[in-house]
Amino acid sequence: MAATESRQITLSESPSGKLLTSNFSLETGPMPVPGDGELLIRVLYISIDAANRAWMQGRTYRDQVLPGTKMAGGALGEVIVSNSPDFAPGDIVEADMGWCDHVALPASQVQKRKQRGPLTHLQSILGITGKTAYFGLLQIGNPHAGETVVVSAAAGAVGSVVGQLAKSRGARVVGIAGSDKKCAWLTDDLGFDAAINYNTEPVMKALKCDAPDGVDVFFDNVGGDIFEGVLFRMNTHGRIVCCGAVSQYDTDTPTHGPRGVPGLIVTKRLKVEGFIVTDFHDQFAKAEAELAGFAAQGSIKVAEDIVEGLENAPQALVGLLSGENFGKRLVHVADPQS
Amino acid sequence: MAATESRQITLSESPSGKLLTSNFSLETGPMPVPGDGELLIRVLYISIDAANRAWMQGRTYRDQVLPGTKMAGGALGEVIVSNSPDFAPGDIVEADMGWCDHVALPASQVQKRKQRGPLTHLQSILGITGKTAYFGLLQIGNPHAGETVVVSAAAGAVGSVVGQLAKSRGARVVGIAGSDKKCAWLTDDLGFDAAINYNTEPVMKALKCDAPDGVDVFFDNVGGDIFEGVLFRMNTHGRIVCCGAVSQYDTDTPTHGPRGVPGLIVTKRLKVEGFIVTDFHDQFAKAEAELAGFAAQGSIKVAEDIVEGLENAPQALVGLLSGENFGKRLVHVADPQS
Repeated sequence: MAATESRQITLSESPSGKLLTSNFSLETGPMPVPGDGELLIRVLYISIDAANRAWMQGRTYRDQVLPGTKMAGGALGEVIVSNSPDFAPGDIVEADMGWCDHVALPASQVQKRKQRGPLTHLQSILGITGKTAYFGLLQIGNPHAGETVVVSAAAGAVGSVVGQLAKSRGARVVGIAGSDKKCAWLTDDLGFDAAINYNTEPVMKALKCDAPDGVDVFFDNVGGDIFEGVLFRMNTHGRIVCCGAVSQYDTDTPTHGPRGVPGLIVTKRLKVEGFIVTDFHDQFAKAEAELAGFAAQGSIKVAEDIVEGLENAPQALVGLLSGENFGKRLVHVADPQS
Repeated sequence: MAATESRQITLSESPSGKLLTSNFSLETGPMPVPGDGELLIRVLYISIDAANRAWMQGRTYRDQVLPGTKMAGGALGEVIVSNSPDFAPGDIVEADMGWCDHVALPASQVQKRKQRGPLTHLQSILGITGKTAYFGLLQIGNPHAGETVVVSAAAGAVGSVVGQLAKSRGARVVGIAGSDKKCAWLTDDLGFDAAINYNTEPVMKALKCDAPDGVDVFFDNVGGDIFEGVLFRMNTHGRIVCCGAVSQYDTDTPTHGPRGVPGLIVTKRLKVEGFIVTDFHDQFAKAEAELAGFAAQGSIKVAEDIVEGLENAPQALVGLLSGENFGKRLVHVADPQS
């Protein structure tokens, strides 16, 4: 029997300081009805990303998520009803579905996805985070064999792929992460050359030993003190890929910027470049094909961290912001039924 | 009769906080004697640059200037004696001659200069600062017609050229400077569209009015709060050309970096790039020819601020750091005699 109700998670109040699960509420309402040109979608997996928290702070590359509205989030779903000639029931699709179990969306806001390997790969290695690693590292950082690449939030969804891609380019790879267990995972399981636990050693000092020839490419997901520590170890003509600033997201009061900006950018002639993966939209198909090949060959290990149940999405995000995930965190809402 | 003595200015002690003229001493010694392969040079004009102060803080792109040694500085001179087949007496040459009236240098450290227009142009529009403006703006910032360019330290040697070059590209140009007199000079004499006195108005707020469409290219010589103020007004895919950080030079304790780094670099997909003009060495001849053409046509007004006498070089630098110069500051030491 088809469900007649659907559930969604609302951002009931703006976080004051650190995000709490009590900032969210689970609500039940009638099953959405797709209008003309719309699809009714069963949500399968919701992507949990540090950027979700930044969306609550104000306008970024998208509108702010305001209190009293459904929490936004990219998700993978299955079309149940299609009022569009371009989609059929059973299609696997991606969209900003938000945190819910069913959603009706205009077909124009929905992308069809082609399954390659496990379904979850569409949101990890073949998803936004895998492609973010791919374009940011290969097109902006562009490391050469023998260069040293440092990546922050190295055990996260993006960082874990960045490090493995950099290894495949022949670079020396140093990861920065928040626990000894993550550091051991990076070196022992993912093949990083070294890993630094920023909670137990100052990054700038540790890099003296772990990046003895200096840093040529820094792929940064974190900002703040870690950015500053690596900046001071950059080589002349080094590249800093600015992918995120997670150290500044879960707070009301983002701190000042790193010392050495812009002084060291001048004297070391650095190139510091920000990007959003959607800027590379026209190259997505090629990237996915290449990443799927790496995953199938095993030259990239796909790390996924799956939390069960829509109701646990708030805790999944709060936990991610405190650094508990290894690799790509997803919330499993339902399995496809066709 | 040829002089038998020469004078030089020594950095007698490292500045503690702001640079003072008492950190220098004027010394007289015997006329230097050029060895094999060396030249004896009469110093004509010494270039005074904010970077001179940064050299006292530690290693930059050159060795630190240590207390007890002759103050370093680029200069224009005339060869008096040549022990090198590549130079002849009367040649006009450029080198890091330091603050002195005569110097003996190996020919390998000296570049011959071809005079185009007034002699002083070789150190202003055709010198390091003019070429810094040229390469930084045109090759890194690369503004298009209709874009908005903001330049800090706009009344300085680099900034005054940057703004005029940007106007010639068809951009809207906003200068940031430290006095109403400078601002009036920028708009009334140099043709800037607007100018902001950072001592009387907050930069971020003033840009709302003076750069109503946001900022596409920011050519920054200053760093610190001005960098931060402009950063918040950058447009998506904007370019920040990092040329200097003069706000951080005349101090023992450089401050923290700008807020919004790296967060805004990500969300606005900015490209922030540092450079040193000597990286473009192989294109100097072309740049000088083009800049000489602009100066001859009058499409760039060459602003020079000439201080008389070697003994006044310390005050010339101290004054430059407090922002008293309009355009390129030089110390006139002697005239050519051939």
